[in-house]
This record gives sequence, C-alpha cells and structure tokens, in this order.
Amino acid sequence: MSTTASTRTPLSPTPRSTVTRLKDRARTDRADLDAVLDAGLVCHLGVVLGGSPVVLPTVYGRDGNTIYLHGSTGAGNMRAALAGDISLAVTHVDGLVYARSAMHFSMNYRSAVVRGRAVEVTDPGERLRALRVIVEHAAPGSWDRVRQPSRKELAATIVLALDLTEASVKIRTGGPGDDQADITNGGVWAGVLPLQQVWGTPIDSPDLEPGIETPTTVLNRVSDAQTSVPV
Amino acid sequence: MSTTASTRTPLSPTPRSTVTRLKDRARTDRADLDAVLDAGLVCHLGVVLGGSPVVLPTVYGRDGNTIYLHGSTGAGNMRAALAGDISLAVTHVDGLVYARSAMHFSMNYRSAVVRGRAVEVTDPGERLRALRVIVEHAAPGSWDRVRQPSRKELAATIVLALDLTEASVKIRTGGPGDDQADITNGGVWAGVLPLQQVWGTPIDSPDLEPGIETPTTVLNRVSDAQTSVPV
Repeated sequence: MSTTASTRTPLSPTPRSTVTRLKDRARTDRADLDAVLDAGLVCHLGVVLGGSPVVLPTVYGRDGNTIYLHGSTGAGNMRAALAGDISLAVTHVDGLVYARSAMHFSMNYRSAVVRGRAVEVTDPGERLRALRVIVEHAAPGSWDRVRQPSRKELAATIVLALDLTEASVKIRTGGPGDDQADITNGGVWAGVLPLQQVWGTPIDSPDLEPGIETPTTVLNRVSDAQTSVPV
Repeated sequence: MSTTASTRTPLSPTPRSTVTRLKDRARTDRADLDAVLDAGLVCHLGVVLGGSPVVLPTVYGRDGNTIYLHGSTGAGNMRAALAGDISLAVTHVDGLVYARSAMHFSMNYRSAVVRGRAVEVTDPGERLRALRVIVEHAAPGSWDRVRQPSRKELAATIVLALDLTEASVKIRTGGPGDDQADITNGGVWAGVLPLQQVWGTPIDSPDLEPGIETPTTVLNRVSDAQTSVPV
C-alpha cells in the first residue's frame, strides 16, 4: 500500500484503540486507515440498544477526519447511536489463507475499527455536505447528476458525525504462518486463495426512458483496473 | 433464493429482532438466514468493552441453530463477549443502486443480524467439533487434510456458541425506488451496478515443497459458478 510523504500522518491511538492482538498486523499510518475506509461500501455500526449491542450494516462517507452516517429520524439505531459511544468497522477480505494445520488457517484482510462518540449534525450546510460525502463515497460522480434532497427528505433524515481520532487498522497479507514442524513434515498443500470484488455490467432501471446513456462515472468504474489486492 | 419445503422453517423473532425499518426487505424464512450466514466469510462481532461497543471482524461457522466463534484466551474481546450480550452481522453487498435522486441511492444486499448471549464451549468434543465447523465454513474440505489442533493450541483457544434464536434477515434486490415525479421528469440515468466476489487463482505458499498439488476442494471453489447474485 503505497503512500505519499504528505499523507504519512501517524495514527495516535488511545489505549483502547491500540491493537493488542497480533500486533504485527497493526498499521500506524493514517493513510492506511483512510485507504481502508475509502475502499469500503458499507461499514458495520455497533450501538448499544436496550442495554445490549447490536451490529448493523450502514452506508457511510469520510471527509478528512470525520465519518458521516445517516439514517431515518425514526430509526431506533440512530437514536441509540447518539445516546452513547458507538463503534464501526470496515473490512475487506482479500484472500483465504490455507495452512498446514487447522489452527493456522487465516484470512488476508484490511480492516479499520473506529470507536467514539458521534454527534448529530444540525447545521443545514454541513448536513447537505455530509449527505453529498455519503453519496459520493458509494457512487462517485453522482451527486451533481441527480435531484438534490428535498426539504421533506432532509426533515426525515438524521446525520451523524464521528471523529476518526480513535481508530485502528489491521492488514494481513502473505502466505500461511505455519509451524516449522508442519513445514518440515511436508505433504500438505498450503497457500492463498485470493478474493476480489468485481463490478458487473450496469443494468438500466426497468423504467428508464429510452435514450438515456449510462454515465461515464458508472462505466469507468467497471472498466477501471480492480484495486490491486494484497495476497 | 430458492428453498426446499423441508427447510422452510419460519424465523420466530423476538420484539427486538423484529425488523422495524424498511419492513419490505425483511425475510422471515429460516432458510434465508442460513443462506446469508453460510455465504459469509467474516462476521462483524459487536461486544461491549469497558462500557462502550466495539465492532470487530471475526471468522465463524454455523452448525444448525448455533454460531461458533473462536479467539485467543488472551483476547479482551472474547472475555467481553462472555460478559454480556453480543451481536453479529454478516452482510453481502450485491450491487449499488443508482437512483434519480440523492436520497434514493441504495444498495442491493443480503444481511443477517444476530443478537444474544454467547456461552463458552467447554466440552472437549464440542470444542473440537466447533473448530472444525469454523475451519470448514471458511475452507470446505480442509479439516481432514491438515494437522489437527494440538493440546497447546486448544489450551490457548476460547470457543463461543451463540444461539440463532434472535436473528433477522434483510434482503434487497432490484432497481431503484425513485419517486414518480423524478421518473416522469426523466433525463437521469438510473440502474444497478452489480457487485460480485470472485476467487482468484490459488497461490502456493512460498515454502511449499515441490510436487504438492493444489487440493481439488480449492480448485473447485475457483471453477464453480459464482453464487448467483440478486441484483
């Protein structure tokens, strides 16, 4: 994962966001965190609801040091997300690691875990910017092409901001970490089965009127070389 | 998503696992839950740690009505997972839904959310079966091919079981749900960009001795038709 000098800002994790397990997989470069977050489509949001945790897949977007989330004003998970700390994780599985022993099977992955206290975004300008960030995160180049949120839609939407201060990144690449005895004994295949996410061919909405072409921002996404996958 | 009559067991969700948002996406068929869980590679596990939630990517396996998780006996998240309720989610993103208005952008997905109280598995026989379930879930056909867990490895491993009683499933398929006015106004492309996970070509471990062939269970995984993706 290459980074330029200007983006090599170290993460400054707090004690509870310092990776304690399998430390060799932890990264402390801020650019790694941003790359993992920016490559994701959904995060998994954890909130405490009725005294116990619940994890829900959620769309999001990143603007600098802020993660934006949104939801319906009627959603219990959004209210819960404002009532206490939250956590969210973004994970990419890049491959399955086949080892020579059962307990050394593993996955190659890139994951970011964020914890903190979200705040509700109430400023109308920031709310609109946040929604733009979320839409552009999932579908780059779309915001200016489509109808903007109506007053009614905005009134039904809650927007949350979560600071990236308390975040950790883990990245595993490479082959299995087998015990030397198992390698010496031999006879068992070991390796990596890479896994990749691939965009398919865009499908027009059935109610699309004739003559509307697929935007280049969509077409380019398909034809672009897939993100190089660390195996 | 086809199911046979024999597996059409309805889910019996509790009030807190009853889907309240976007109910049309909720499924109540037990086979849908099993299919979403079985197709996943990692789940996102939510535990309460030091009073606030943390979400972590975790491998898992399903055996009937039980989800098995495992981790290091030294991992704080495993201890936290036994100290209170937990939640886990498995999500597959099948496509990005481009709408004619910003607030109608969406994703096609299949997701399962489970909540409950995990118990530690202590019976030696069940522990071994659980670890087998987890390895076979990620890498079918591997358990009997590789070295079994040693006494030392087992002593360092904690195994958790979570009942699937309190689970919900959401599945979204199809095109955008645009407002009629936006459809009538026309002029904006709308549709679905499908997304698929694809296995690559297996990569031998660099330390693999010559003459060891890639197992057919690995090769078949690559050549098998990809899971049909609901767009």
